[in-house]
Formats: sequence, C-alpha cells, structure tokens
Amino acid sequence: MLKETIEKIRPVDHTWIERAKKRLNSLTKPVGSLGRLEEFAAQVVAIRQQEMSTLSKKAIFTFAADHGITEEGVSAYPKEVTAQMVFNFLNGGAGINVLSRHAGADVVVVDVGVDYDFGELPELKIRKIRYGSQNFLKGPALKREEAVKALETGIELSDEYFLKGYDILGTGDMGIGNTTPSSAIAAVYTKNPIKKITGRGTGISDDKLKRKIEVIERAINIHNPDPKDPIGVLSKVGGLEIGAIAGLILGASKNRIPVVIDGFISTAGALIAYALCPYVKDYMFASHCSAESGHRAMLEYLGLRPILDMDMRLGEGTGAALGIWLIEAGVRIYNEMATFEEAGVSDAL
Amino acid sequence: MLKETIEKIRPVDHTWIERAKKRLNSLTKPVGSLGRLEEFAAQVVAIRQQEMSTLSKKAIFTFAADHGITEEGVSAYPKEVTAQMVFNFLNGGAGINVLSRHAGADVVVVDVGVDYDFGELPELKIRKIRYGSQNFLKGPALKREEAVKALETGIELSDEYFLKGYDILGTGDMGIGNTTPSSAIAAVYTKNPIKKITGRGTGISDDKLKRKIEVIERAINIHNPDPKDPIGVLSKVGGLEIGAIAGLILGASKNRIPVVIDGFISTAGALIAYALCPYVKDYMFASHCSAESGHRAMLEYLGLRPILDMDMRLGEGTGAALGIWLIEAGVRIYNEMATFEEAGVSDAL
Repeated sequence: MLKETIEKIRPVDHTWIERAKKRLNSLTKPVGSLGRLEEFAAQVVAIRQQEMSTLSKKAIFTFAADHGITEEGVSAYPKEVTAQMVFNFLNGGAGINVLSRHAGADVVVVDVGVDYDFGELPELKIRKIRYGSQNFLKGPALKREEAVKALETGIELSDEYFLKGYDILGTGDMGIGNTTPSSAIAAVYTKNPIKKITGRGTGISDDKLKRKIEVIERAINIHNPDPKDPIGVLSKVGGLEIGAIAGLILGASKNRIPVVIDGFISTAGALIAYALCPYVKDYMFASHCSAESGHRAMLEYLGLRPILDMDMRLGEGTGAALGIWLIEAGVRIYNEMATFEEAGVSDAL
Repeated sequence: MLKETIEKIRPVDHTWIERAKKRLNSLTKPVGSLGRLEEFAAQVVAIRQQEMSTLSKKAIFTFAADHGITEEGVSAYPKEVTAQMVFNFLNGGAGINVLSRHAGADVVVVDVGVDYDFGELPELKIRKIRYGSQNFLKGPALKREEAVKALETGIELSDEYFLKGYDILGTGDMGIGNTTPSSAIAAVYTKNPIKKITGRGTGISDDKLKRKIEVIERAINIHNPDPKDPIGVLSKVGGLEIGAIAGLILGASKNRIPVVIDGFISTAGALIAYALCPYVKDYMFASHCSAESGHRAMLEYLGLRPILDMDMRLGEGTGAALGIWLIEAGVRIYNEMATFEEAGVSDAL
C-alpha cells in the first residue's frame, strides 16, 4: 500500500500555475501586489487541477503517541500529559481546538500510540499501533513493520477524508518527548550538528537540554540511521505520530489535496515523507517557523518558506490552523475578486 | 477637538499586561508557547482594561483621496482609478472586500478627497475635504486647516464606530499616487535617504522611480517640513487619506480600542499620529511588512514588529484584515482555552 501510494504521487503540472497567474493578473490590483496570497492560490489551483476550487472543508489531524525516550528525562512534562491532553482535545479546551474553530477547520484526534487505554470515545479515532515507542537508547524506537503501519495509518486517513470531500488537510501532533526523535530525524537529513537542531521543546532547563543533546548523539551513534532508508530512520529514532504525519502527507499528495505542515514535529514527518517521495514538496505548505531551534534548518532543507513567524512552539496543529486560513484567503482572492474588465477599472498606463 | 483628543490619550497600564500573562500561563500549553498570539491577547486586555473582551465587531476603514502630485508622472496608473476603485469597493469586488469578508470585518469606504463627485451612494461615506490634494511641487499639498480637518474626520469616525460597539479598527487607503507623499513623510521622520525609502508603488519603471525620487527630493527642499510640526508635515507633503488614517489612530487610542495598521500608506499616517502623541504606540498593531521598500524602516522607527511578511503591497487595508484575524486568534486563545486545573492536566515537572 505504501509503495503503491508513492508510485501514484506525481509532480504538480506547472502549466496550471501559469494559467492561474493569468487570472490573478486580470484582477483589480497591481500585478503581484497580493504577494504570497497569490502564490498560495496558484499552487492550490495547480494541486487541484481546477480553476475554481474552494477550501470549504478543512481538517487538522492531531496524531497522539508516547515516547519511551522520556525515561531519559528529556522533557519538562510527565508522560501522562499525552493522554490528559487527548481528553482536553476531545473537550475542546486545547489551543488546537480554539484555533481550528477560528479557522473553520475540524480537528481529528487520532491515537496512534498513546500509552493509555481510552476505551470507546465518540470523538477519538483509535488507530493504536503500540503503547508508545521504545526508548531508542535501548533498541529501535519501533519495529520496521510498526513504522510502516504508522505511515499507512496516515495514508488511510487522508484517503478517508479525501473521499468525505475535504479540500485541505493540516498536520498536528501530541506526544510528550517528541521533540527528541524530531531533532534526531532533523540531524539525519539536514546534517546539521545535533546541538544546533536541538531545542528546549516544552521548556527544559539548561541541564536537561545538555542531557537531551547527549541522548540524541548516543542514539545516532548506536543506530547509525541511513537517510536513504527513511523507514529505517523512522523505526530507529522516530515515533508513531511522526510516521502518521508522514503518511498523511503522502496520502494528501497522492489525492492531490494541499497539506499544511505545522511546526517542528510535523516537519520531521515531512522530512520522512520527502525522503520517500520528493514530489510531496509540491503539495506541502509550511505554515510557520517555530521558535524551536532547528526548525528553520529543516524548512531550508525542504526548500519551504514558512507563512508565519510568530514565535510559536506548541504543536498540536496550531500553526497549521492559522496557515490554512491564510491559504484560504489566497484562494478566495482568486475566486472572488473582480477583474479590471468586470469592474470597469483602467489598467496600468 | 484634535487637541482635546490628544490630551485624553493615556499610555496603557502595564499592570493589565501582567494580569493577562497570569491567565495565559495557567492555560494548557507550555508557558509562552503560543508566542505572539499571547502577546496580542495581553495587549488587547491592557488596551480594553477588561479581562475577557471579544473582538466580535471589527471594521476596516478604507479612506480614498486623490493626489495632485500625479501630474508629475509618479504612478503606474491613471488618476481616474481612485474613483473607479471606490465603485469596486462598493460592489464588493476588491481585495479588501474579499479579505474583510474572510476575516469577518466590515469595510467602511470613506471619500475624504477623491477628485470625482459620487453623489449619494448608500454604502459610501462622503467626508470630502477637497477634490484631491495639490501638486506639492507647486505649493503645499493641503492648507493647514484642511490637514486638521482630515485628522478630525478620522477622529470623528473612530468615535462613531466606538459608540456603535466596534471592538477593533483597521486602517486602509486608496489613492493613486499616494506612495509619493508617504515616502516624503517617511523621509521626514526616519531620516533615511529618500532613495532608500522610495519604492515602486503600484509597479513603476526604473525611469519613473528615478523621477519619483527627484520629485520627493525637490518637495523636501522646497517645503523643508519640520518633524516637530506633524500638522505642517501633513499639509506640506501629505495627503487627505493619510491625515484621516492618522486621525483614526488618535481616536481609537483615545477610545481605548486596538487599531491595526495596514501597509506603507497607513504607516505614514501612523508616523503623523505618533508625532502628535507617542502614546498611540500602545494601541497600534502593525499588520504586515509591505514589499514596498522603506516600509521596514518606518516600522523600525515606530518600534513596531509586523505580524505578517507576505510580500504584499496592495494597501486598501488588505494587510489589516489579515492582521485583525490573527489578533482575534490571540484573544480567543485567552478567552477559550482550558486551564491546567479545569482540564486536569499535570503541569511541568
């Protein structure tokens, strides 16, 4: 299934971009004066291969999972917070709930590996692969087949929401400890020094940051992950929500719907997806540059320019919610503005 | 009236910022992890002096006026476009209409000096002070009393909309030729070389840009505007919509409602308002950094960090519309997120 998905992903056809630019240049504004809003619109037209698509159905996927690496004291919060926050999502009280309501997007909460039994809950999608990843100082974080399962979970969900008529998807994460695997993945791909791409996550002390860097260095030494084997990277030093995010990106690209990447953890997922199939780049939008150090280097590696830069570092999909609304602004400009001809406005001299 | 307004503007009380931060830090997210969204919320709380204010009623003012300086060939578009675009605004087909709809804001179109008789039009506010400014190579752009009238028009409108229950105002402009007076005002205040703060506006050629820079240099030499006399600056090298924008900022500050500054032209208005009363800074949000060269220097002079940087340079209030929505996102985070206690989530270790 993974292989089949990857084979179906095609690069965006640039003649659609040119076609979109023609319309954008006929609208009552100086050529190019709406800057990136115009760029977003043209990219969405090219992705959908449709002159007038709307982004009325929007969903943000918040994938939750635990991380065995928290045993090493790499986070400011206890591991239980992952499950507690899932309840907060279901009750509508978290940051992602507020910002998704504001952006008119649905939040889809998916348990891909929380170390807690939720039982049946109406608003929670249970796709649990295992009860959290392993401490990757003691072995690989995931078995190879678990990593594949995480990717396929994301693909399946993107198929499901594509069939439900969703026009744009956003990625999000919840998992205490998950900046540690994300920094490890960033190190593998961007080849930056681990120190440079490891940050304070939820807000750890200097001592804990030092420890976190050592943990990542040891993990890279133990596993020696090969960037050319992204499934290997994901299983050795990754995590379940990171795999599901990568899968969602692959699935959205296959289904030709735009996918909006949240912050640090989501971009680690994007690195895995991009390594599996570089064409996904045409379908991704980087919603923001996180305050987590290292995020900029990851975005630069992917060649994505972030939409926002607001010192955010919460995850959950909060940046994606804001990004989706701004991309929709561009699409509405494309669809709703009057042309010079329609409005009887004189063009440039 | 102008004097009275200025006297009533007080700096924001910083104890309200501390109070707001207390609540923000109790919400289910790592401290400060929503970055600037938290900053916006705290600033709005301090401006309104109210724990839980909402930004449900939002208006963007698009002030339209003509400029005699267009005689000198400084713009890419014919002067008639100002009036034509006013009709476009009233018909809902312009960029500002689309983005205001998207942000849930009303657009208030005000004729403060278009060189055209609109007659009675239901959606247009006629506050015409004169039929466009004078060519300021041939004399001052406005008489001193006209400059004061422009400022007072902005103040009156902010009073009117404050009484109508509006919670936040945005500034916007329409006026072919108006980057020329804006660059002149920027030169007076930021003391940057005219070449550095003069851009291509709607998209002029190299030759026209050279001409535009010469025009501004000559105007500054002729009038020698004194930065300590902002009304003098506005009358010598300004414009009617720039004055009305400055007035709207003063009025919003007096009425303790946040005011969101659009791009290059609006920031020229902000420079005038700030020179009249530096306390306005506490009430202003810079929505974006325009692609028009010189805008960044103006924002730095004011000490305002722009919210967005999306290569936009349309004016009308389009940046303000996006900025208002992002500020509202911060306020909703403040009002709607659950606290650690409410959600039963463990706090940091």
